Amino acid sequence: MPGTDTDTTDSFAPAPDAIRGTVEAYLAALRSGSSAAIVALYADDATLEDPAGTAPKVGRDAIAQFYSALDGSPQKAELLTLRVSGASAAFHFRVTSPVGDHEYEVEPIDVMTFDEQARITSMRAYWSSENLRQL
Amino acid sequence: MPGTDTDTTDSFAPAPDAIRGTVEAYLAALRSGSSAAIVALYADDATLEDPAGTAPKVGRDAIAQFYSALDGSPQKAELLTLRVSGASAAFHFRVTSPVGDHEYEVEPIDVMTFDEQARITSMRAYWSSENLRQL
Repeated sequence: MPGTDTDTTDSFAPAPDAIRGTVEAYLAALRSGSSAAIVALYADDATLEDPAGTAPKVGRDAIAQFYSALDGSPQKAELLTLRVSGASAAFHFRVTSPVGDHEYEVEPIDVMTFDEQARITSMRAYWSSENLRQL
Repeated sequence: MPGTDTDTTDSFAPAPDAIRGTVEAYLAALRSGSSAAIVALYADDATLEDPAGTAPKVGRDAIAQFYSALDGSPQKAELLTLRVSGASAAFHFRVTSPVGDHEYEVEPIDVMTFDEQARITSMRAYWSSENLRQL
């Protein structure tokens, strides 16, 4: 807002449904507890900032290292709101993670950009430790 | 996620409460129907992409021109979710706009970055015309 002119200049943008498909596959991969399934959704030279403002992880190896903490630890993940805009998406979701004997819940807003094949080229996760809740 | 290390590298980041204050002032300014009140929250050399993926508006004059469409047209604006991360914030909000005899509602996710005085240095709005609803 304001105005209703939503033409984007992202001429290479994948279809909104393809972007939605990647976001849903990302949440399904979080639920699977397989970091390989998550990393397969990223482009080779992708970047990741989680949380946003921290030093970015750059490239598939660094991203794989980041998600390896999830291996064998299936998350609960539920999409709350998704907004697709050109070749980007912002989405609000709930993730519940087992940590030792406890479960922690957080509802980040993630922003992703995508290449023409709807692979993730960048991810920034907006949340802070204040948003973590022990269940 | 994963991990709970939320230290950011945004060493100049304003306090989370200052960022929250600017976001709340932004929504209040939308409600006021005064584009000057909105523009005053931006840094001089800020950039604006609304919706994300469109050509950015760069600098205070271009941003003032963009918001001038709202002058004399108070919006209803309600914060739904705010996530602060370093010197950035992502927030989901509902805005209801009068257009002719009708009202349109949209619930974008906006992402903003801030300078050390919590002025907005960039804004990207994630939404598309599919998300517009006539009331």
